[in-house]
Amino acid sequence: MQLSPKLAALVEALRCLPGIGPKSAQRIAFHLLERDRDGGAQLGNCLSQAMQSIGHCESCRTFSETPICDICESVKRQDSGLLCVVESPTDVLAIEQTGQYTGLYFVLMGHLSPLDGIGPQEIGLDVLQTKLQQGNINEVILATNPTVEGEATAHYIAELCNNLGVKASRIAHGMPVGGELDLVDGMTLMHAFSGRKAL
Amino acid sequence: MQLSPKLAALVEALRCLPGIGPKSAQRIAFHLLERDRDGGAQLGNCLSQAMQSIGHCESCRTFSETPICDICESVKRQDSGLLCVVESPTDVLAIEQTGQYTGLYFVLMGHLSPLDGIGPQEIGLDVLQTKLQQGNINEVILATNPTVEGEATAHYIAELCNNLGVKASRIAHGMPVGGELDLVDGMTLMHAFSGRKAL
Ligand SMILES: [Zn+2]
Ligand SMILES: [Zn+2]
Repeated sequence: MQLSPKLAALVEALRCLPGIGPKSAQRIAFHLLERDRDGGAQLGNCLSQAMQSIGHCESCRTFSETPICDICESVKRQDSGLLCVVESPTDVLAIEQTGQYTGLYFVLMGHLSPLDGIGPQEIGLDVLQTKLQQGNINEVILATNPTVEGEATAHYIAELCNNLGVKASRIAHGMPVGGELDLVDGMTLMHAFSGRKAL
Repeated sequence: MQLSPKLAALVEALRCLPGIGPKSAQRIAFHLLERDRDGGAQLGNCLSQAMQSIGHCESCRTFSETPICDICESVKRQDSGLLCVVESPTDVLAIEQTGQYTGLYFVLMGHLSPLDGIGPQEIGLDVLQTKLQQGNINEVILATNPTVEGEATAHYIAELCNNLGVKASRIAHGMPVGGELDLVDGMTLMHAFSGRKAL
């Protein structure tokens, strides 16, 4: 038996979900048809809407349904003079969940990766430069990932900031709170040592 | 930061997928928006189409986009005089993949479960009875799951068949091919012993 055309198309389309192979895709399709047609129809609708209507904030490049996102619109955040640079919108969410940071963001939507053709323009550094030249930002906090590419990107942006006379800082790396020394990787341990502070 | 309305709606809607919690739903939504908008839009479209257009075959109750499914339409299968009763459309797929069975199917879309209000009518036994009374089926092969409910359902249908003078048989249970004796559950082992054959 072949699957009917629309069922086969659904199974195939489900494979765009990360980590879903052909077997799981089939299981999901049957589950929705058997047990949750309303949920499936609702998901279909939300996906179509989201893929069509969610663009990027013109100011910080994060996902937004409006030309300028809520965070960039906030006068209080504009007044902070702080701009935190991250690689992805999920990083913004993670930082916002701490409830401690009250400045603006700039989302690179990736990191420099010259071999993949991802240069300064692809991660929006022209937009960032224009923003910094407007003179409202006092400090750029570089919160790219502590990976080789993230570090390289942070250093590249730090130089851009220095050229424009804007202070740049890098978030601290070290032991995660509650972590165990012997379970942490060597790179993190190295950062923890080199970043040590007097008590 | 709150998620924008359409992004929040998408994250919420993704939770209808089996085994997807709030964290995974968020990860999937961002993945699609960042890396695979075409795939996401395609999935949205396929979901809407499938939930709307895929109904049940009037003859065997499996999923079908047409009133009668391909298997039920097949004259060769009609001529076999065999009808295999299973609980779910995925069981049909599994049996079809063996390529050995060439008869018809009847899909219960569940099993008898009086406490949940699922009686003979809910699993289509009225439709099955009409089918058997037409006189084209010589043998009903009961391939419900080897669970308490599956067994009870098989026995109920066997009695129905006996009353109508149609032969009913139950698929064999025992050791899975390639299985190891000490790794198999007691119920299966018991079936394997009671179903032993002379060599
Ligand atoms: Zn923004
Ligand atoms: Zn059918």
